Amino acid sequence: MLNQEVVIQFPNGDKKSFAKGVTLTEIAASISPRLVKKSLVGSVNTTVTDLTRPIVADATIALYDAASEEGLEVLRHSSAHLLAQAVKRLYPDAKLGVGPVIENGFYYDIEMTQQLVPEDLVKIEREMKKIIAENFTVVRKEVTKDEARQLFAHDALKLELLAAIPADELVTVYEQGEFYDLCRGPHVPSTNKVQHFKLMSISGAYWRGDSNNQMLQRVYGIAFATKEEMEAYFVFLEEAEKRNHRKLGKELELFMFSEEAPGMPFYLANGQIIRNELERFLRELQTTYDYREVRTPLMMNQRLWEQSGHWHHYQENMYFTQVDEQKFALKPMNCPGHMLIYKNELHSYRDLPIRMAEFGQVHRHEFSGALNGLLRVRTFCQDDAHIFVTPEQIEDEIALALQIIDHVYQVFGFEYEIELSTRPDDYMGELHLWEQAELALENVLQRLGFPYKINAGDGAFYGPKIDIHIQDAIKRSHQCATVQLDFQMPEKFDLTYVNERNEKVRPVVIHRAVFGSIDRFLGILIEHFGGAFPLWLAPKQVQLIGVADAHMAYVEQVAAELRQANVRVSIDKRNEKLGRKIREAQMKKIPYIIVLGDQEMQNGTVTVRVYGEEKLITAPSAAFVEQVQREIEEKKLP
Amino acid sequence: MLNQEVVIQFPNGDKKSFAKGVTLTEIAASISPRLVKKSLVGSVNTTVTDLTRPIVADATIALYDAASEEGLEVLRHSSAHLLAQAVKRLYPDAKLGVGPVIENGFYYDIEMTQQLVPEDLVKIEREMKKIIAENFTVVRKEVTKDEARQLFAHDALKLELLAAIPADELVTVYEQGEFYDLCRGPHVPSTNKVQHFKLMSISGAYWRGDSNNQMLQRVYGIAFATKEEMEAYFVFLEEAEKRNHRKLGKELELFMFSEEAPGMPFYLANGQIIRNELERFLRELQTTYDYREVRTPLMMNQRLWEQSGHWHHYQENMYFTQVDEQKFALKPMNCPGHMLIYKNELHSYRDLPIRMAEFGQVHRHEFSGALNGLLRVRTFCQDDAHIFVTPEQIEDEIALALQIIDHVYQVFGFEYEIELSTRPDDYMGELHLWEQAELALENVLQRLGFPYKINAGDGAFYGPKIDIHIQDAIKRSHQCATVQLDFQMPEKFDLTYVNERNEKVRPVVIHRAVFGSIDRFLGILIEHFGGAFPLWLAPKQVQLIGVADAHMAYVEQVAAELRQANVRVSIDKRNEKLGRKIREAQMKKIPYIIVLGDQEMQNGTVTVRVYGEEKLITAPSAAFVEQVQREIEEKKLP
Repeated sequence: MLNQEVVIQFPNGDKKSFAKGVTLTEIAASISPRLVKKSLVGSVNTTVTDLTRPIVADATIALYDAASEEGLEVLRHSSAHLLAQAVKRLYPDAKLGVGPVIENGFYYDIEMTQQLVPEDLVKIEREMKKIIAENFTVVRKEVTKDEARQLFAHDALKLELLAAIPADELVTVYEQGEFYDLCRGPHVPSTNKVQHFKLMSISGAYWRGDSNNQMLQRVYGIAFATKEEMEAYFVFLEEAEKRNHRKLGKELELFMFSEEAPGMPFYLANGQIIRNELERFLRELQTTYDYREVRTPLMMNQRLWEQSGHWHHYQENMYFTQVDEQKFALKPMNCPGHMLIYKNELHSYRDLPIRMAEFGQVHRHEFSGALNGLLRVRTFCQDDAHIFVTPEQIEDEIALALQIIDHVYQVFGFEYEIELSTRPDDYMGELHLWEQAELALENVLQRLGFPYKINAGDGAFYGPKIDIHIQDAIKRSHQCATVQLDFQMPEKFDLTYVNERNEKVRPVVIHRAVFGSIDRFLGILIEHFGGAFPLWLAPKQVQLIGVADAHMAYVEQVAAELRQANVRVSIDKRNEKLGRKIREAQMKKIPYIIVLGDQEMQNGTVTVRVYGEEKLITAPSAAFVEQVQREIEEKKLP
Repeated sequence: MLNQEVVIQFPNGDKKSFAKGVTLTEIAASISPRLVKKSLVGSVNTTVTDLTRPIVADATIALYDAASEEGLEVLRHSSAHLLAQAVKRLYPDAKLGVGPVIENGFYYDIEMTQQLVPEDLVKIEREMKKIIAENFTVVRKEVTKDEARQLFAHDALKLELLAAIPADELVTVYEQGEFYDLCRGPHVPSTNKVQHFKLMSISGAYWRGDSNNQMLQRVYGIAFATKEEMEAYFVFLEEAEKRNHRKLGKELELFMFSEEAPGMPFYLANGQIIRNELERFLRELQTTYDYREVRTPLMMNQRLWEQSGHWHHYQENMYFTQVDEQKFALKPMNCPGHMLIYKNELHSYRDLPIRMAEFGQVHRHEFSGALNGLLRVRTFCQDDAHIFVTPEQIEDEIALALQIIDHVYQVFGFEYEIELSTRPDDYMGELHLWEQAELALENVLQRLGFPYKINAGDGAFYGPKIDIHIQDAIKRSHQCATVQLDFQMPEKFDLTYVNERNEKVRPVVIHRAVFGSIDRFLGILIEHFGGAFPLWLAPKQVQLIGVADAHMAYVEQVAAELRQANVRVSIDKRNEKLGRKIREAQMKKIPYIIVLGDQEMQNGTVTVRVYGEEKLITAPSAAFVEQVQREIEEKKLP
């Protein structure tokens, strides 16, 4: 009798016996019908698995509904199968590629003669809903590779996938109604578990991501646990689209792209003003922290990149040219140039730390399909710094670097999260140095009271690092700043300093970036502020409009006062209606719009429309100029 | 009888008859023995010629002594022959290449087995003096090409030169004592005319400048009219050496070079401070002149460079790379990028002028032998601007461009000369446009009251231009700023705007640079100021030194006041003697050195050493801070 039972332990620690071969569905049923209804998948000894798999030994189990990460992932995976089944019904010649889960949803790659258009997605969705209503049980079947080959005999893509599965690995097929797919699973128990989904778009995709293969049609969809979550996602999409930096970049004349240089931004006057302000802000801040700014060439010879290891590790992403029969590379990083500057002089421990900064323009190749406005480019300006320190100085310097980062992010109103990535398996260098370094990083984070998450084994091969993830106004996360310890670069470039005992020893290098890429950071700022920049960054800070010609002398006078205070001012002198001038200035998201008429001229005042606010403010012009000047100085947030 | 006489007209207009066949020497003798003595060469109907040539027809003549340009050139040419004769005497196996005149002197290229060393120059000079004392008459001989080939039968280099002379051209040989040389002349009449010369250096040079040919030894010499002029030249050389920007660049830690990127400067912290100040200065000035700064990619595809004409005209100086199977070029100029920005929008006549500026990093290949510190590099930052105008706006915009240039050069204390270069033979475009443009440029220069020189036919093929030549502290001339009209670029890029009559018409482009290359301009500034920069540019503006530990709190207080006023301050905290600290700060050419002791601490004063001045100044610290701030603001010259 004993070996006919299995002991099941629940997440809360409770244990209970069931007949051997019991399924997760049966266990759920033993608790409540509601639990059966909402469970999508479960886990047996931490392995996520179908609810219908029999349990044949004592185990710890859990059940997951759509509110859990595990449940939602399976829900989306099963949605991809629904999509595939609907496509097969509507387009019998369709052959299936792969259908994985992605952020917020899923896709399926399909080979078929008919080119899908957006209207077809409605038809496919309707068919998917029919399959949901038909409520097929989803059945997992284990088959031999031979059986699978027979099942998919007419499906060249699946046969290719099958061929890639190791001989000793179990092959599984999932079946729902007339449809079956080669799949590892797990899946929801029946098709009616999927309720909140939508097909979003169609695009082309090379089979297995290889541009030598045929082009398939990829249908994207989203799926959520509840209607509310799906609606929230649409609101998010709408908000993100309003803030889309490519759209705003065009509307606000910030930057442009040209097919003559794909992935390489052209900054228009408005964008360049913001770039210059960002650069100036960080330059001044770095000066107070005793950084020394340098400038290194954009290309250096191959020998140097071989020495630095970039040739070996990064060649694929580098651009090359020829100078006097020698191969040169455009710099993808500034490190080697800074190492050469360090080596240009002898150093004593008294000189350290040396904080070497550069606004360095780097070039890194990206596939044209991966390019995305300012967020993914082929050339960008890094606010890079390398800090050369003695091992004893590591903690203090990391703390200073984090202080700058904190200062900068507060100025933009960014919340951020810190991740500490520790020694990876393929680490280089001595274990005791790693331990010392990781301890130093942890000490600093604790000393400064920053909460942080540890990513064990996620450090760079040359040292542990701290990554900072900022959260923008619509809760998207972006990794920008980084602080990395490097024991390898000093080794590779044979860097030394003379210590207190007159011995030549190696410094440690700290790589540090605050914005990361000024270009990408600008892209994030555009979306974060939705184009309504804080006053100090706004390309035009004040727009002046006169009610009639009679007021233009006063308009010029106020403009002169503002310019005198280094405020970026413009006057709308066009022969247009007042209302239109105001509306257009608001479209340009200019922080302050000032309309001047009789009243203002008589009283020496200004009437101000603050961007995004309803009510008008009237103030003496001198007081307003002073306020604007102070707000710029303070980098006031909108 | 009549045809046995020739009428000679003198430079003052006087005329006199001489027997046909009279020589310039004889004419000089008819005036005064002193004139014979000092004359080196003459001219017959403006052709410079030997004094011994018989005159066979009426002619206008002139006589030149060493004080004239013509006389000095011949003196230097004859010095080269002296050098060659001495070398032949000392090294009988020596074969001669060419021996031309260069700035301040001459050289001769020699093929010989023995490698010359500087000590040999003394020996050669001694032999040259002997030849001068021997006072050979210099004899010009006309020979046939066959005769010449026999004369130089054992001289492969001369035979090569001979072969290059057209068959119908007269071949001349100049003889002095046992020495003769294939030479067009003219020369001084006798070897003792050369008195003030010196051999300077030896270097290698490829025969005829072609690196496929053999390497010859080139001996450089100088020669002057008087001992005083030669001494003045040595003083100049010494001064130039003291100011040498490569030497000062190292001493003042401004920049460095690396063999990993020849010709591509690495700016160290001190140099980068100056660069940033220069950029900021011009950026702010440009803002007041309503320029719009942009930023364009460093590389663009070949198609674009074909369209702009750079591919055809400038390929040899460009660096190429590959992006996604397409050939890209690193930009040697910013124009095409700016044209793309202009084309990004539609323009009306109301939008013009558009003043588009960029601090654009360009790459242009130079032979490694031509590289010279910051003065000749392979990559530099241009302070470039393109102004898009209607034809009617040309004059006003040129005037504004010249105003900015004048303003900037005054700030550095540069005197300058203006040259207007007009239509070249190979001009492109319509004649009437050229005439209009040249007139516009002349009008502007006259309106502004700028004196200028016309270089007829020296304009660019695409339009006339104004070049500005600045004179540095030791009277050397450098071409930096340029203002060029361009009718071709708008054509090539099909640029248009809509005029008042609603027609699409072409704008004109004005290319403009003030510094030209920031890198080269910095090189010139280093030499101009001999490294003792004006306060606003000085990397360190104030050096603070405490007499003893007891004064350090006061030192820190004064430093904080200065930093608060944005002054670049450093404190010498080393454990060194006061005298040494002061000396070392002076070596670094820091504008203000402040020593603080009891007296200063008690009175709240500072005692200031101004760089380059003897006497000390004592002032209340607040007054000093204010003075420094004002001097920075005003960009006061040292």
